[in-house]
Amino acid sequence: MTVNDIVRSCSLFLFDLDGTLYLGDELFPFTAELLRELKKHGKEYRFITNNSSKNPQDYVEKMARLGLSTQPEEFITSGLVTAHFIKDHFPEKRLYVCGTASLKAEFAAEGLRLTDSPEETDAIVLGCDTELNFKKIDDICRVLCTREVPYLATHPDESCPTEYGKMPDCGALARFLYTATGKMPQIIGKPEPLMAQLAMKLVGTPKEKTAVIGDRVETDIESGISAGTYTIFVESGAETDAAQKQFGAQADVVLPDAGKMIDALQAL
Amino acid sequence: MTVNDIVRSCSLFLFDLDGTLYLGDELFPFTAELLRELKKHGKEYRFITNNSSKNPQDYVEKMARLGLSTQPEEFITSGLVTAHFIKDHFPEKRLYVCGTASLKAEFAAEGLRLTDSPEETDAIVLGCDTELNFKKIDDICRVLCTREVPYLATHPDESCPTEYGKMPDCGALARFLYTATGKMPQIIGKPEPLMAQLAMKLVGTPKEKTAVIGDRVETDIESGISAGTYTIFVESGAETDAAQKQFGAQADVVLPDAGKMIDALQAL
Repeated sequence: MTVNDIVRSCSLFLFDLDGTLYLGDELFPFTAELLRELKKHGKEYRFITNNSSKNPQDYVEKMARLGLSTQPEEFITSGLVTAHFIKDHFPEKRLYVCGTASLKAEFAAEGLRLTDSPEETDAIVLGCDTELNFKKIDDICRVLCTREVPYLATHPDESCPTEYGKMPDCGALARFLYTATGKMPQIIGKPEPLMAQLAMKLVGTPKEKTAVIGDRVETDIESGISAGTYTIFVESGAETDAAQKQFGAQADVVLPDAGKMIDALQAL
Repeated sequence: MTVNDIVRSCSLFLFDLDGTLYLGDELFPFTAELLRELKKHGKEYRFITNNSSKNPQDYVEKMARLGLSTQPEEFITSGLVTAHFIKDHFPEKRLYVCGTASLKAEFAAEGLRLTDSPEETDAIVLGCDTELNFKKIDDICRVLCTREVPYLATHPDESCPTEYGKMPDCGALARFLYTATGKMPQIIGKPEPLMAQLAMKLVGTPKEKTAVIGDRVETDIESGISAGTYTIFVESGAETDAAQKQFGAQADVVLPDAGKMIDALQAL
């Protein structure tokens, strides 16, 4: 299979963000042109990100700082997918959210019920929590050690890039809490298929006409495979090493970067 | 070897606290008499605990609530041992302490220099931090990702008992930070020998006349073995299971509880 085949077959393209369309705070030089070409050819695209510390409006603002105009509807965050999952499975439960004020605002905007009281908690959600404190740790252990409640994590990433290196992320927090509670959360974000499935449902495109494009095999490519879409592995991520390149072959197509899709679009 | 041999040979007895002299908030019925008998026979004792969220004065108050009169000098906490270790190895370094206000006060009282600024940090100490927040996590990752500094943990315990079950402790925090930094701290508390060694130095007793008594093989008994003291494993801990009992045989003597030392003292 070639990138031309995928670009011809697909009408929905689900892009990972960091390492795929930008790196840290630098937009890749091809990103604006790639998105313009997709629009020009009547293709839809969405941005799918495991980061749940920012909501879609936060991402619109970040992209504007990088020089790209986007709409909130174009972003499918793991927080948004988690909110949809909860609405589908237990919309009435009161949620204890271990996450940022931004994530809580996103949940509240989706009509979900939130609580800060362990006694009132019917379900627990872990996100990327840059506002973590010991009260949250204590409250969550208190609930998980004494009751059976639904327990979700927006994404499984162990660490998250920062300007100085890395900080521990949602997956590491889940293992931290596991040492005390013996319980692990159900994962919502990539590599699970839910994020790609929600994007396809919202756009109304079947998996046979959808491609997932990303720089991480164990999250992006796995999520596309498990959702049954086409997959494109790009080698433009900060963490692309020999092992990633080797396992990148699990994708339908491997490209040095997503900019190589422009030629395929122009050849349509 | 019998408990009578140890009681005859030794003049210093280093007792673990929870599971050995009390369980949670209940003093064992033999504890007061055991300590009285030791004093009556001219034996010294100290309490050695990995918990660094409380300092010796906090422990005096806790023991008073349990009905036992003690002195601050009788408590060797992992925080105190860490303070001594720092004074011996790098007394001038400015410490970033990820621990309670109580631990910081203990360090300050020992004359150590503390800082809350990652830029000023020369060394990092992790304790049992019931006042943890994201700023501390971010500050520590910032230092460990960008510089080589001494990095200590007061103790290695993964979890800590609470009234509702368990909460994650210092060892779990170390692994949480490892996911981002790739660095693990040097351990000061049990099973390392430093705590028993400091107690022996402060009392002035050689290892041949010292016994460590505790309910956990992998911390208490190992620390006695590595410090070269006699060891007594007691089966009175909350977590004494078949595996602990089996490995308890690594100790010189195994007793159902520390109260069985009273008969040996009275037989002297």
